[in-house]
Amino acid sequence: MYRIITIGREFGSGGREIGKRLAEKLGYAYYDKEIISAIAERSQLAEDYVNQVVENQIRTYYPITLGVSFAAAPEDGFYAINRSIFAAQTEILEELAQKSDCVIVGRCADHILAAHKPFRIYVYADMAFKMARCRARGDDGNGMTDKELEKRIRSVDKARAQYYRFYTGESHDDRMTYDLGINTSTIAIPDAVAAIAALVDARK
Amino acid sequence: MYRIITIGREFGSGGREIGKRLAEKLGYAYYDKEIISAIAERSQLAEDYVNQVVENQIRTYYPITLGVSFAAAPEDGFYAINRSIFAAQTEILEELAQKSDCVIVGRCADHILAAHKPFRIYVYADMAFKMARCRARGDDGNGMTDKELEKRIRSVDKARAQYYRFYTGESHDDRMTYDLGINTSTIAIPDAVAAIAALVDARK
Repeated sequence: MYRIITIGREFGSGGREIGKRLAEKLGYAYYDKEIISAIAERSQLAEDYVNQVVENQIRTYYPITLGVSFAAAPEDGFYAINRSIFAAQTEILEELAQKSDCVIVGRCADHILAAHKPFRIYVYADMAFKMARCRARGDDGNGMTDKELEKRIRSVDKARAQYYRFYTGESHDDRMTYDLGINTSTIAIPDAVAAIAALVDARK
Repeated sequence: MYRIITIGREFGSGGREIGKRLAEKLGYAYYDKEIISAIAERSQLAEDYVNQVVENQIRTYYPITLGVSFAAAPEDGFYAINRSIFAAQTEILEELAQKSDCVIVGRCADHILAAHKPFRIYVYADMAFKMARCRARGDDGNGMTDKELEKRIRSVDKARAQYYRFYTGESHDDRMTYDLGINTSTIAIPDAVAAIAALVDARK
């Protein structure tokens, strides 16, 4: 069985950078946004639309009950499309997991690939760090005020949490869904990468 | 300024063992239950009583509001004693932090010593792991059933969480209160110790 590392992350926390650097250091494949393109291709939906569904636009109108929310959702067009996107995503992640050792960022990969016993990392940071990082990377829109930027960060994080809860029945916030939680406001990214790599080696 | 490592932990997760091994590996002082004795001495209360207050017996009858709960508590005997215990604990932790590099388990040390910028670890595990560990260590009372043991673990964890919330106004469950979260159900204790030690070295 190949070794899988999954990375959940808050927006602006540096989770993607950790994933990329880790994959490089370990010589693992790295998957992030390319999964969206693959889903789009397979589900024959526009990539932008898939991205909206996967990243930002899930709306849950129904009370979420553990594990059954998705199965219980009514079969209107919106849910049918979401369901087909999630099915394609599940299929693609399974294929990737059977191809090589890899690092996968987001996409509920920790949950979908649970049978592969992935090493599950969660990267988070305080708001000041996330705002500064967004500014430094130009992820702050067109001259957003601090208030606007903070709102945007909260909104992306909320959408990701909803997506995760909708499809997995679990809460992103529950530390039982990850093996290692890293606060990048206080742990430098290169140090985090070295620590994770050492832990991966120890699991061999 | 000396380097301080604080360890919060769920009951049965192995947090104390991680703390002890880490202190040994780094050559730091290690403080855990001895803090209770020092508090008892300073507050002139029985050690058993202090232990009950610090570990298990805090009851919060009042709605908790961020940061002000403790200050706002009425001055009856119960609260006056708790307050004097907490004052002694704060004093003692400050003294320890000014004596040498150290590892401190529990006692809200992460919060009390915030100005020292401690490296804050939180150790947790799933219930099956915690139960097995309690059994293996003989921390399972006199032949408790699984149900009784699980209840005991939940009750200790709940009491610790209440104690933390009561004195700090923050939630133990909030990952923003720690820098690194380690799930010992999936990360072996020696590996966790090595990873933490490497991160401590990197912070120098």
